[in-house]
Amino acid sequence: MIDANHIETLRALLGEKGLLTEPSDMAAYEAGARYDKGRAAFVARPASTQETSAVVSYCVKNGIALVPQSGNTGLVSGSTPDSSGQEGILSLDRLTAPFALDRVNRTLAAGAGLRLSDVNQRLEQAGLFFPIDLGADPRLGGMIATNTGGSRFLRYGDVRRNTLGLTVVLADEDGTVLDLGSGLRKNNTGVDWKQLFIGTSGAFGIVTECVLNLEPLPRQTATAFLVPDAADRVPDLLVAMEDALGSYLSAFEGMSKNAVEAALAHAPSLRNPFQGGIVPDFVILAEISRTSPPREGEQLLDAVLEEVLAAIWEREDAPLADAFVGPPHEMWALRHALSEGVKHSGRLIAFDLSFRRGDIMRFLDHMKAEMPAHFADVTICDFGHIGDGGVHFNLVVPADDPRLADEGFESALREWVFKVAVEDFGGSYSAEHAIGRKNQVFYDRYTPDEIRRLAKGLKAITSPAPLGCVTF
Amino acid sequence: MIDANHIETLRALLGEKGLLTEPSDMAAYEAGARYDKGRAAFVARPASTQETSAVVSYCVKNGIALVPQSGNTGLVSGSTPDSSGQEGILSLDRLTAPFALDRVNRTLAAGAGLRLSDVNQRLEQAGLFFPIDLGADPRLGGMIATNTGGSRFLRYGDVRRNTLGLTVVLADEDGTVLDLGSGLRKNNTGVDWKQLFIGTSGAFGIVTECVLNLEPLPRQTATAFLVPDAADRVPDLLVAMEDALGSYLSAFEGMSKNAVEAALAHAPSLRNPFQGGIVPDFVILAEISRTSPPREGEQLLDAVLEEVLAAIWEREDAPLADAFVGPPHEMWALRHALSEGVKHSGRLIAFDLSFRRGDIMRFLDHMKAEMPAHFADVTICDFGHIGDGGVHFNLVVPADDPRLADEGFESALREWVFKVAVEDFGGSYSAEHAIGRKNQVFYDRYTPDEIRRLAKGLKAITSPAPLGCVTF
Repeated sequence: MIDANHIETLRALLGEKGLLTEPSDMAAYEAGARYDKGRAAFVARPASTQETSAVVSYCVKNGIALVPQSGNTGLVSGSTPDSSGQEGILSLDRLTAPFALDRVNRTLAAGAGLRLSDVNQRLEQAGLFFPIDLGADPRLGGMIATNTGGSRFLRYGDVRRNTLGLTVVLADEDGTVLDLGSGLRKNNTGVDWKQLFIGTSGAFGIVTECVLNLEPLPRQTATAFLVPDAADRVPDLLVAMEDALGSYLSAFEGMSKNAVEAALAHAPSLRNPFQGGIVPDFVILAEISRTSPPREGEQLLDAVLEEVLAAIWEREDAPLADAFVGPPHEMWALRHALSEGVKHSGRLIAFDLSFRRGDIMRFLDHMKAEMPAHFADVTICDFGHIGDGGVHFNLVVPADDPRLADEGFESALREWVFKVAVEDFGGSYSAEHAIGRKNQVFYDRYTPDEIRRLAKGLKAITSPAPLGCVTF
Repeated sequence: MIDANHIETLRALLGEKGLLTEPSDMAAYEAGARYDKGRAAFVARPASTQETSAVVSYCVKNGIALVPQSGNTGLVSGSTPDSSGQEGILSLDRLTAPFALDRVNRTLAAGAGLRLSDVNQRLEQAGLFFPIDLGADPRLGGMIATNTGGSRFLRYGDVRRNTLGLTVVLADEDGTVLDLGSGLRKNNTGVDWKQLFIGTSGAFGIVTECVLNLEPLPRQTATAFLVPDAADRVPDLLVAMEDALGSYLSAFEGMSKNAVEAALAHAPSLRNPFQGGIVPDFVILAEISRTSPPREGEQLLDAVLEEVLAAIWEREDAPLADAFVGPPHEMWALRHALSEGVKHSGRLIAFDLSFRRGDIMRFLDHMKAEMPAHFADVTICDFGHIGDGGVHFNLVVPADDPRLADEGFESALREWVFKVAVEDFGGSYSAEHAIGRKNQVFYDRYTPDEIRRLAKGLKAITSPAPLGCVTF
């Protein structure tokens, strides 16, 4: 039990701004972005690594469970307390220092509580950015804990690839601080320990600071909508585009007809860009970009893209039914509207899956064919990142569907989708959302015994006290 | 002690070709590429993951120490047995299957015993390659154990970035086989265990198979030699080139005058490309490349590079003293001749260091200034990868220098260089060669206690038996 003494000690450690205990102050921290609502014993808001260490040490010694919370924008119940009122939230939101740009090294040393949008706004005048492109606006610590990917993964990779250093506080009696890397790009002097804290939901330690790789901002961009000849031609189209464009290609996003129609219905300001207003079964948003500024005598990127598409089009066995280049802003606006559109088209049951790139369309086709026999009146509104294998596999059920009252319905649906994705197609049940309470059951089911044993061993040597929402 | 019974059992497990015990057969495995000569009890050459597991299990149960050996091209004594004759070598050289290209996924599932050159030759007709560019020709398992980087790190990253899956045999009584990843690009369902086996010298397990990311082969390349106005202008030059060229830039290699002169002296067929044959104090080899084929109406890359250099040149405060574009083949020939040239210019004492990019030239200047006072008649013949912070810091002592007879001389030199690099400049004592017996003393010295404790804990839960040449 957490008593007044504990609260008093924590307040002494953290100061007035550093500890919230009033229900009205805590409410925003107790509810997740889309799911969940728990109850916290307190919200600790340390303003430095040292304060974080002090709080963690105190809580470990006193048996107080902590849930680290970053931007709280995650979708798998990974950053909110349970309903007991006995867990404390450890919020990163005051860990906003340092913000130290090393222009020559092309790195940023940053507090884990900084928001992605804030970081990139402050970097803009240096012509650099942290190249993770997301719909949400998380804080850095949470991006590291989930190893987010996003829409430009194909070009820039995930958070893991762009993390050069971490400062981590372990959940042990000392609140041990690990200084892991300091911006070296090459360093092979033992285990690269920072890798263990990336994508592991904060269970092995709390990230308080990081050193990030930055990339030059793109200075030219061109986009096109591509309509494949048939779903099973999408892999050919991807290979043809990569063959012709190499590393110019910065996005290759798939959008189903159902998702596009949901977005157009929800956001009437969006222009329907398709001939006769007829949305094709499946559309690819392809983007090419260059970080170099336009140079005299050089073809504009729009023309490059037109030419490449024309060459693919002219092939005897062209995988294209239609293709047109258009303004990047407008094309991305449609892509970015999919998530909200789908959410508003009924009750959304969302999956964040990934596959080998050649298996995505096979999986989608399979599900389209099998869904009616397994679950009637469930609409598949998928979209995702074909270029890196990620699929936001969204299922929509009419909002007034009586089955929604039955808890077993959603869980039967989840069971079936995960079974097909993981067991039949060798996919992942969490591409870029990590585990959280929501995926715990699937971690327990699909993780081989020897890996679970290793994870338990690792937990024991790093952060033996409970930390966060996942039990490894 | 390893007796005839052990040998007989191992031979039964592995077959005639799978076990070598004759001194003449073992000799090639007992000596490293450049340093070391040990003595092995036997050379086990399993041809599959299952055979590897069986050998490891038998050896662990019988207290027989194993040294995993891949291409044996490493430079830190990481793959050769000690002189006791009591260690067995576990060679990867028969682990040459599978070789399974997934064209759509852009991945290769490969046996850890395949040579880099072999892999890339076989991939060429698909227009793809494993993008690690090295002077040596290692096997894949060793590349993973050392996390090699090479000359195109700036564009493609290291082995870690390009490894999507591993199969690993642990040194426990069961010879446990871990199947870590299967080519998914996005998968965040727990600890990314494969990261622990990358760059850790084989101490935590033996990699038998891997799934590698492939990249489209570059189809256009242009190179230039850049002469900075002064050593401390190199960072400005790097930033200017990245600003103008973004991800076109695929190499930014530094070469000291001493290294270039050594190469020209050793390989008379090389053309001296510098005006009047006078080699500048420091030269940068910059490369730009495109994976897209040349398109009509598009500027050739040579012209792009010329234009960018002209624009930098015209700045008021230009960091350039000279620059000229030339044939990539010829320019890289000089770069690739540095290593051999330096080796033949006297007795070489080599260091594989790395720094934050802004610190490299400061370190080199410092060493040039300080060396004579610390060690007379030692020539600094550095070259390296300025774009990613790596420096091959080579010291050359006249071959007949009497100090070489004194063991303390080389070790005093090493101590001093590592002290300055690590303690004064925050660098790494092993950028891309990993640890091995050679760097063990520096691992022990420079690794913080809490990290050493974690490493010991990790060793206990993965491969509790001794494995390889490093003690974590």
